[in-house]
Amino acid sequence: MRVVTRGKLSPEHIIYFEELLGSKYVHTDKESLQACASDKTEDLHFLPDVIVRPRTIEEISSVLKFCNQNLIPVTPRGGGTGLSGGALPHFGGVVLSTERLNEIIEIDEKNLQIVTEPGVITEVLQSRVKELGLFYPPDPQSKGSCFIGGNIAENSGGPKAVKYGVVKDYVLNLQVVLPDGAVIWTGANVLKNATGYNLTQLIVGSEGTLGIVTKIVLKLIPYPRYDLLILAPFDSAEQACASISAIFMAGHIPSAIEFMDREAVAWTMKFIGSSDIMLDDKAQAYLLIEVDGNNMDVLTKDIEEIATIVAGYQSGDILFAESSVQKEKLWKIRRCIGEAIRAQTIYKDEDTVVPRAQLPLLLTGVKLIADKFGFKTICCGHAGDGNLHVSVIKGDLTLEQWNGQVKEGIREIFKLVKSLNGTISAEHGIGLMQKEYMDIMFDDTQMKLMRDIKKVFDPNNILNAGKIFDL
Amino acid sequence: MRVVTRGKLSPEHIIYFEELLGSKYVHTDKESLQACASDKTEDLHFLPDVIVRPRTIEEISSVLKFCNQNLIPVTPRGGGTGLSGGALPHFGGVVLSTERLNEIIEIDEKNLQIVTEPGVITEVLQSRVKELGLFYPPDPQSKGSCFIGGNIAENSGGPKAVKYGVVKDYVLNLQVVLPDGAVIWTGANVLKNATGYNLTQLIVGSEGTLGIVTKIVLKLIPYPRYDLLILAPFDSAEQACASISAIFMAGHIPSAIEFMDREAVAWTMKFIGSSDIMLDDKAQAYLLIEVDGNNMDVLTKDIEEIATIVAGYQSGDILFAESSVQKEKLWKIRRCIGEAIRAQTIYKDEDTVVPRAQLPLLLTGVKLIADKFGFKTICCGHAGDGNLHVSVIKGDLTLEQWNGQVKEGIREIFKLVKSLNGTISAEHGIGLMQKEYMDIMFDDTQMKLMRDIKKVFDPNNILNAGKIFDL
Repeated sequence: MRVVTRGKLSPEHIIYFEELLGSKYVHTDKESLQACASDKTEDLHFLPDVIVRPRTIEEISSVLKFCNQNLIPVTPRGGGTGLSGGALPHFGGVVLSTERLNEIIEIDEKNLQIVTEPGVITEVLQSRVKELGLFYPPDPQSKGSCFIGGNIAENSGGPKAVKYGVVKDYVLNLQVVLPDGAVIWTGANVLKNATGYNLTQLIVGSEGTLGIVTKIVLKLIPYPRYDLLILAPFDSAEQACASISAIFMAGHIPSAIEFMDREAVAWTMKFIGSSDIMLDDKAQAYLLIEVDGNNMDVLTKDIEEIATIVAGYQSGDILFAESSVQKEKLWKIRRCIGEAIRAQTIYKDEDTVVPRAQLPLLLTGVKLIADKFGFKTICCGHAGDGNLHVSVIKGDLTLEQWNGQVKEGIREIFKLVKSLNGTISAEHGIGLMQKEYMDIMFDDTQMKLMRDIKKVFDPNNILNAGKIFDL
Repeated sequence: MRVVTRGKLSPEHIIYFEELLGSKYVHTDKESLQACASDKTEDLHFLPDVIVRPRTIEEISSVLKFCNQNLIPVTPRGGGTGLSGGALPHFGGVVLSTERLNEIIEIDEKNLQIVTEPGVITEVLQSRVKELGLFYPPDPQSKGSCFIGGNIAENSGGPKAVKYGVVKDYVLNLQVVLPDGAVIWTGANVLKNATGYNLTQLIVGSEGTLGIVTKIVLKLIPYPRYDLLILAPFDSAEQACASISAIFMAGHIPSAIEFMDREAVAWTMKFIGSSDIMLDDKAQAYLLIEVDGNNMDVLTKDIEEIATIVAGYQSGDILFAESSVQKEKLWKIRRCIGEAIRAQTIYKDEDTVVPRAQLPLLLTGVKLIADKFGFKTICCGHAGDGNLHVSVIKGDLTLEQWNGQVKEGIREIFKLVKSLNGTISAEHGIGLMQKEYMDIMFDDTQMKLMRDIKKVFDPNNILNAGKIFDL
């Protein structure tokens, strides 16, 4: 635990915020500060000096302008569910919560677009558009509590990404307050745009380091009428992953292909008290495969063909989910893996991604590296798009081992990922956690481009400073 | 016609290029220079001082490094089919042709990816992957001669964008030579990436102003097995466009919805000597609607439902294309509109895009503005994604009118587009042609961000200087 405050706030600073926002929305009490000192990222803890909760764009603009003039660090915070420490105030200063910008402004059914503020919970947004027969697919595990603004910041993914893409594929236009208080729109509310540089996509995934998103225009699509789900157990994790490429090569695009290794399933069923998956001795890994669409006959044919394909990769008996209740039970196991691990051990969560046909090589490599460096892993992930979450388990490792050889091992894993044409974060972002590994992916030229872009937006480096990279 | 050379080349400069590349690949003869003085953009004409045709990344790097040190303007050129003047050497200097970087490096069937050089013709790339049952959907009208590298530069679209997205949705990773000669990759060969700023999407659509793309990794998808095509005539252009939203709201996502007004069809059939569309008196506009997929029963049902929907919008008799020959004939009319107009008149081509439900308003507005300013328009476009190409026809307007009131009228059209939440270029780019209208879309803050990003990549402003905006 480490608290660094670059520009310790004075009482005058706090008074400014109170006069601007009303004292009800400015917090310096210990309990509030503690609540914003961590997120869902391992064991990080950094206290801010103050939390401000503005309601309007004008208020956000004023806060940023003031902090920019006074060189006060500002950390934007959404739902606090991040997995790379992006919302943590590691320089102290101001945490700017977007929780009061929580209105869906318009659902435009004619254009299949939604205009929303950033503090809307992702699942709330999804439910609202679903009532109208519309679909916003990006679906992080934390959808019940994460904010759509945070999803923009991290370019989140989720299980549906394999068919429907990630957040960046749905963002049409963003209203952004820049660190000096200026307010811009990044683009237009259109599906195609060749008008200058793509500022929209520069903001998506920039982890709150370039500006604070205050309005979001998202593309929607018609909600598919039906889905079918199967669970296939495999004798080996490598065989499970090898079957995935075969599914695509046969022309199928499932709406989800989730991988879970034996330990992931065992830990989670224990944690949630479920017995919905048979853990026979042979099953070393599982694939949860979903197809969706508007024609049940087509889906039935698709899922049967997929079942036949995976059977060629040493799968055991395939379970066809027979009701929405059974589907929900299977999805719950997948969704609760992260929580189950967090509840039972200290861990480090790595968010590797490779071209999907490289997954067997990645899995074999991760096991070898873990053995070499003496740690255990639990693996799950959105295997359909090559995204493997590797949880490194502390278990009975000493702190010295945990901060020494384990980190060396993670570096080896990331080097392997890079050699397989992959990258070190698919959907969690870099934040504070993966900064030290950025040199594996990027050389000085690439890093200089990113740093110089940061300086274009934030010359005083007040906004979420020290995330992704140090200036 | 205007020729500006900022840094007139000396014989020593030419000798450097000849020694680097071999004199066979360095051209200063009048014929070669003339060939690179224009593209498909109206009547622009700018002579370069020299054309270089490197083969390797190292050669491109050396050319750029040398030009950067000597402050020589460099204009990258692909197939020369651009519609906004992006490849024109309006400052003279060096035209760097990518035509010798024309190899498809790898088609990775397991990962559904292709790695290609930028000088490959788009249609060649599409045919090669189609032989393997794979699909690269972005499909500009010029696909038979444009280069895939130019498509990256302009973020091209085409008719399939409505279902399959534009170029940016398929670009996974780019190798780029920066203006100082440094070579970078922008990302990784993965479907999901949350590792630092999205340099890939910053390069896509940057019109060759930030770097020269030398390798391209694209996502592929399985090729759909079947398609069906209908042509629907309408009593009014507004009714045609109004029917489009209804199609989506009923849950359909056609693989193309192309709009053609009466004049577009008439001019083109005359030009290509076709009589494949009945031009009865009532038909003021047409929609060409395609659906594709892997199940013919589903497609048949879809296209029948769509036909029923458009019939509710005063459509005349709908033509169901009955063979691949007939499909090709209908598509040919759509594809040849631009060429037909170019062959018959001087024109200005505007590439407007709005949220699709606003198309009727846009169309009505364009007509009113054209009447007010005394010019004629021909309209066609990818109406499914709100993209309307407006060709302003010179006809018997004087040069004074052409450069005076017509430009005022275009400004009015763009202001209308902006007020409808649209933008002034969907897929042609800004280049030289639309620069003067950028102030309609962007204020000083937005323009400063773009200019500063340009300076990050190209501090000496040697690379495609003066395109999109002046520094």
